[in-house]
Amino acid sequence: MKLDADTLAAIKWNEQGLIPAIVQDARTMDVLMLAFMNAASLQRTLDLGEAVFWSRRRQELWRKGATSNNIQRVIEIRVDCDADTLLLLVEPTGPACHTLKPTCFFRDLKAFAAKPERL
Amino acid sequence: MKLDADTLAAIKWNEQGLIPAIVQDARTMDVLMLAFMNAASLQRTLDLGEAVFWSRRRQELWRKGATSNNIQRVIEIRVDCDADTLLLLVEPTGPACHTLKPTCFFRDLKAFAAKPERL
Repeated sequence: MKLDADTLAAIKWNEQGLIPAIVQDARTMDVLMLAFMNAASLQRTLDLGEAVFWSRRRQELWRKGATSNNIQRVIEIRVDCDADTLLLLVEPTGPACHTLKPTCFFRDLKAFAAKPERL
Repeated sequence: MKLDADTLAAIKWNEQGLIPAIVQDARTMDVLMLAFMNAASLQRTLDLGEAVFWSRRRQELWRKGATSNNIQRVIEIRVDCDADTLLLLVEPTGPACHTLKPTCFFRDLKAFAAKPERL
């Protein structure tokens, strides 16, 4: 699928030209992570059939699993009502999180408050 | 639960003092919406036991369901690894979306591309 100009124009990119993409495991339904996409990373995701984000820190395309081999095969991409958020349903081949937990959301707020650290 | 200074300092608020909050139905596991919270809305959510966001458009606290009565009872709040995204597991009393669909993510990218409009 090639994204055409009308579709790209209807997506509500933020001031940095990015849209948040929620990643959900299509099998377990666990929410795995939130990342950002620009138009190029969304098109690359469609071309590859694997999640490709925009790394805000490194300012470059970030194919999930490029170094870890923990890729996310994309089953479906959904667009929300006002077109300012994407939801990717994926089949991951390994942990989503750099801590090697399956999901980045492994702490509840109470646990975080007891030990408030960024990992 | 009262958020203390250490917890608030460890959360990675963006330049506007906000953090994205993914809302997931605790029963169906469907992802319902993405909204933003500031520190006050997060504390208010904890106090009420219902989702309270920060409306970026209206620049005010936004108790979900204040006008629609479709509130979201909060079962759990999770913090991701690097503390820049929240995940709320909720029990909604009605549709999450202003279109009255249960979730804001009711279109896939193909359907959106066929009719690229913000609703």
